[in-house]
Amino acid sequence: MNLGIAIFPPKNIQDLANSFRKRYDPRYSLIAPHITIKEAFEANEDQLPEIVQYLRQVAQETEPIPLHIYKVSHFHPTNNVLYLAIKEEPLLTALHNKLHEPPLMHERKYPFVPHITIGQEMSDDELHDVYGRLRMKTFEFTFTATRFHLLYQLENEAWTTYETFLLGQKV
Amino acid sequence: MNLGIAIFPPKNIQDLANSFRKRYDPRYSLIAPHITIKEAFEANEDQLPEIVQYLRQVAQETEPIPLHIYKVSHFHPTNNVLYLAIKEEPLLTALHNKLHEPPLMHERKYPFVPHITIGQEMSDDELHDVYGRLRMKTFEFTFTATRFHLLYQLENEAWTTYETFLLGQKV
Repeated sequence: MNLGIAIFPPKNIQDLANSFRKRYDPRYSLIAPHITIKEAFEANEDQLPEIVQYLRQVAQETEPIPLHIYKVSHFHPTNNVLYLAIKEEPLLTALHNKLHEPPLMHERKYPFVPHITIGQEMSDDELHDVYGRLRMKTFEFTFTATRFHLLYQLENEAWTTYETFLLGQKV
Repeated sequence: MNLGIAIFPPKNIQDLANSFRKRYDPRYSLIAPHITIKEAFEANEDQLPEIVQYLRQVAQETEPIPLHIYKVSHFHPTNNVLYLAIKEEPLLTALHNKLHEPPLMHERKYPFVPHITIGQEMSDDELHDVYGRLRMKTFEFTFTATRFHLLYQLENEAWTTYETFLLGQKV
């Protein structure tokens, strides 16, 4: 099965992101607006217990993470993805790195640029047009991530949450 | 915000349910296939900590729940909903009841009939036609629910998981 790990921002930011995704993101209905901290990776169901145990340990060792959305940006020409950009944050980078160590090793296709996608698979023209309009606006939000989610993908490509991991909870 | 509480069945059952929902459930893309154990209810964000604390306690007190899908059924004429029916299970009923006690009190519109919706808002003709075909087939699945999810609803009516609660974990 395909697994992935993500942080869901607060509801107001998800609602804002969806107001753009509805128009500009064909994958809009497959998952709520999110910050991917580990891209989709393949695992067998019998590997889940080990993965979950590792994620619990990582979550316990990680303090809640302050996050700061500060602008709209895009990955053109690598990818015609439009996104809300999140300021580099050492705690988030450290979490991302731990999610790419054994038993969660796998190749990273791109450097880690934390973001919330608000458009993808856009034509060059549409991307530049929408980005041109949105870059004039202010996008400033701060929030504290207190949890991350392990998700799995269904056959229709939609994602379901398997488990939530609370940051910094000593249990 | 609107909150709801649900159990997601295993991936293979979600995939099966989606194969019908894709055609017969206009709310298909808003949530993964699930067993509702508490219908949508209104709460303020500042009530969340109390709700979460209560749910943790309920989850700890509840053993994993064996569930048995045994047939296709429908709620016609009350509701033109087609569903996978789940055998009555005292542990599940007890959990449902605890989720309707303070601080989670609210009116129950219908008696609790555990089910996984595979079609809704169907015309009478379509419901009878599809039900007539599916009732000839065998739907037999057993699984153990090890967790439930607290969800919240976005402005586009889609649901995001807030937190997972593991059953019977003494922490």
